[in-house]
Amino acid sequence: MTDAPMTAQAASTATAGDILSSHLTAQAGAFLRALPLAVGEVGARPGAVAVPSAGTADLLRAVRRIGGLLHTFGGSFEQAWAHESRTELRWLLNLLALEPGYVRRSARLLGALDSLNGTEPDGPGMLAGHAGAPKARALLDRQLTLARTRAHSTVLQELRSARLHALADRMTLLVGEAPLLESAGGRAGTVLLPQAAAAFTALTVGAQQLPLRRAARPYGGDGLRRLGTVQPALPGAGPEAPAVRGAVDADAALAADDAPWLRVRILVKRARYALEVCGRPSVELDELDEVLGRHQEAADAAVTAATAARTPRITPATAYVLGVVHADQRLEVEAARYAFGRRWPELPPGPDGWLEIPPAEGWGQTPAPRTA
Amino acid sequence: MTDAPMTAQAASTATAGDILSSHLTAQAGAFLRALPLAVGEVGARPGAVAVPSAGTADLLRAVRRIGGLLHTFGGSFEQAWAHESRTELRWLLNLLALEPGYVRRSARLLGALDSLNGTEPDGPGMLAGHAGAPKARALLDRQLTLARTRAHSTVLQELRSARLHALADRMTLLVGEAPLLESAGGRAGTVLLPQAAAAFTALTVGAQQLPLRRAARPYGGDGLRRLGTVQPALPGAGPEAPAVRGAVDADAALAADDAPWLRVRILVKRARYALEVCGRPSVELDELDEVLGRHQEAADAAVTAATAARTPRITPATAYVLGVVHADQRLEVEAARYAFGRRWPELPPGPDGWLEIPPAEGWGQTPAPRTA
Repeated sequence: MTDAPMTAQAASTATAGDILSSHLTAQAGAFLRALPLAVGEVGARPGAVAVPSAGTADLLRAVRRIGGLLHTFGGSFEQAWAHESRTELRWLLNLLALEPGYVRRSARLLGALDSLNGTEPDGPGMLAGHAGAPKARALLDRQLTLARTRAHSTVLQELRSARLHALADRMTLLVGEAPLLESAGGRAGTVLLPQAAAAFTALTVGAQQLPLRRAARPYGGDGLRRLGTVQPALPGAGPEAPAVRGAVDADAALAADDAPWLRVRILVKRARYALEVCGRPSVELDELDEVLGRHQEAADAAVTAATAARTPRITPATAYVLGVVHADQRLEVEAARYAFGRRWPELPPGPDGWLEIPPAEGWGQTPAPRTA
Repeated sequence: MTDAPMTAQAASTATAGDILSSHLTAQAGAFLRALPLAVGEVGARPGAVAVPSAGTADLLRAVRRIGGLLHTFGGSFEQAWAHESRTELRWLLNLLALEPGYVRRSARLLGALDSLNGTEPDGPGMLAGHAGAPKARALLDRQLTLARTRAHSTVLQELRSARLHALADRMTLLVGEAPLLESAGGRAGTVLLPQAAAAFTALTVGAQQLPLRRAARPYGGDGLRRLGTVQPALPGAGPEAPAVRGAVDADAALAADDAPWLRVRILVKRARYALEVCGRPSVELDELDEVLGRHQEAADAAVTAATAARTPRITPATAYVLGVVHADQRLEVEAARYAFGRRWPELPPGPDGWLEIPPAEGWGQTPAPRTA
């Protein structure tokens, strides 16, 4: 439904512009269908569900794919238009992700606390029955509910904004009429392959800069003790991923430690969407994306626990429990890195491995997902 | 030096009593040589070193081996005498281990805290520069120094006690004159093999009751969240390993979770010493013993951190840091279980694998250590 399948005959003579237009038309259509649903959903619910509702999920899906396409194949579009579109799509992405993000974080942290504090005889947690746990739970719940309520108001307001209407107009124009450059008239394989390959090269370079050797040894990462050497910022990873060097306080140190992983998550998503444009979705990349999603959620949840522990006038018992919860989430971060390190080498060596199918057979089609 | 080598000819006709007497004579001799050194060492130093001094280490070594031999091959000795001797040896063992234990625990916890709090740009910890760290460090240091000082006084006092003199007399009598039963006159292989095999069976049964499948998956143990099902007490594991069921407070839950592992450590030691008596020391068992030693030290250190966090009138920041330290030590516990789970299956299937060398060739000799 989201990709426009082409026959093998049509695909063999397709230009890059044909492929890109076909994808953008499909995704912009999905965007426009999902938008009113999403707006209705946000208005109707107080935001108490961890998974975005159907409309919001579809909208997020289209926004991510259009943004990814405009980034990876940006060379085929009018520059200023592509840049503006990506900025507006990123704004909507961050807006829509905000509230479900808090709901998921709340479920994650309260669930972790309940497990840590569990007293079932067949599997108590390390805080089983600890006096500080109920207070810590109430504190986290209160702070996250407040953040979620604020996010909800913001989203409700922005969904009625002129900015969103302008973006919807932009998507309407995009259906069937993307502002392509002349160079997009070249053959799909010749024009798109190098751009998709560049997305893979960026991912490979990004992953190579991760401390994968350390992550591959379980419990060998000195876990909580010694965060990795901070890597310099990767070119092209976007403004979402600042590199912090020489951090001397804990929050900054953790942010710097997480930054290269968050960058690689962005690069994985771009490679995913590039493969989809090439008609070859990848189960492996989906899984890596999922693992790095867990990484990010655990890292964010750890920050929330650490921040809650700085609330004035809490009891030592509450603070102690929040220290354990913080460490528990950093352990989840480490586990996600280990999972990534185990999966990464299973990927083919580079873009050639992914893109070796001749364009005449594969372009624009959606084959059955690969089974890894 | 500690084992009395026998020629192959002598060994081939040796009785169980010959083998046991030879070992006990050697170890009792080591005990008597090391005792005055150890007493002098304890008197001379304030106990600030993590590794026991040479005399104390030799004394501990002999005490463990004599106790292990009297347990595993207890069927060859006069019952009441063996039981009394083991009780007195265990008393000395606990006494001597007390002070070095606190010194090691202090080094472990303060070292962990310093790593967690480290601010080096190339590897800051998750508490980098946290305001609560210096206070938490001072608190742990103060409490452990106090405990160590108390232990030192106790040890100094007991080393001058009539009880120790009586134990030394008992060891003096043991040199060359162990109270063997008539049954020890049988051939070494016939009498000792079943007893050594029983030590291995106990170890195998004990290890089978560990949650090894969970431990073998890194980060799969739900780490801090859900401690394992508490196992019933193993027969023959001794009074050192109580089983706690249905614990509903955190300390008891953790103690119950650790108990089967501590029991297996005792069983590993017994199997080690039984193999030594059979002239076949095992590098694999040495390593398992080392891994379970780390397990125990981390578990004990975690208790110390949790206890410190209950000190009245500490600040929330201090308590928070102690929560992180507690979780960090529980992570070390989990890492040690993982290391055990990885090594355990490498062991031969049972005592037969270890003891298959015909007694005539191996008994009482000390071959080169096996390289695994």
